Amino acid sequence: MLPGEFEPFVRGSRVARLATLDPSGHPHMVPVCYATDGHAYYSAIDAKPKRTPPERLRRVRNIRANPRVALLIDHYEEDWRRLRYVLVQGQAELLAEGAEFRSARELLLAKYPQYATVPLAEPGLMIKITPERVVAWSAEP
Amino acid sequence: MLPGEFEPFVRGSRVARLATLDPSGHPHMVPVCYATDGHAYYSAIDAKPKRTPPERLRRVRNIRANPRVALLIDHYEEDWRRLRYVLVQGQAELLAEGAEFRSARELLLAKYPQYATVPLAEPGLMIKITPERVVAWSAEP
Repeated sequence: MLPGEFEPFVRGSRVARLATLDPSGHPHMVPVCYATDGHAYYSAIDAKPKRTPPERLRRVRNIRANPRVALLIDHYEEDWRRLRYVLVQGQAELLAEGAEFRSARELLLAKYPQYATVPLAEPGLMIKITPERVVAWSAEP
Repeated sequence: MLPGEFEPFVRGSRVARLATLDPSGHPHMVPVCYATDGHAYYSAIDAKPKRTPPERLRRVRNIRANPRVALLIDHYEEDWRRLRYVLVQGQAELLAEGAEFRSARELLLAKYPQYATVPLAEPGLMIKITPERVVAWSAEP
């Protein structure tokens, strides 16, 4: 679904934005760290400083009530000819433990050295996004 | 609604992400340039390279059908103690011309020198977001 020339961009970008739906159906967004195995996208509910317990986080409550999400990975610079983005629309689910939880954790650990000091304990909470529709856009032809 | 210490961050950030709702109610996202007068947020449908005429753009059709949007302004860096974001949830409308269109255009021109070469013609299309709920978050206390 993702054009091959966008793969390094999607794997290498350091931050994405996750949109979920509020109970009222209003869009909600947060920046997230993420990793992908080339199929699904994973984002951990980690020990980054948060004032809210994981289960109370808006993104978690939203996904439990409505799994429809979007994930946006984009590049901005002042030369607007170099803008690009990848939009992933899909279904989210929450993984608490198990083989897929652990392989997603390995992907995140390999991408973000920060997770060495912000552990991803198991059981924990991992958002898995399965793409249904992917849009890849670049200002350059 | 926005804590004062976040104002320079919100005014100065160069890119935001806009979430709208698809006809099916699925969240959709794009990166956007934007400006704010301290109350509303404005983003132009400009002459940045696009393969779709403005009226056919997904964000425009989505807003016409459902004005509920979110705008996220965030800062990422590898030192996760310095993460921060501002989430604006609100109602969007489309301005085609008039005094508010022109004052929003002035804000965008003042912020983005690129608009000198990517004109914001009137009549045109300008997204106006009126905040209903603002969340400001910083990893630092």
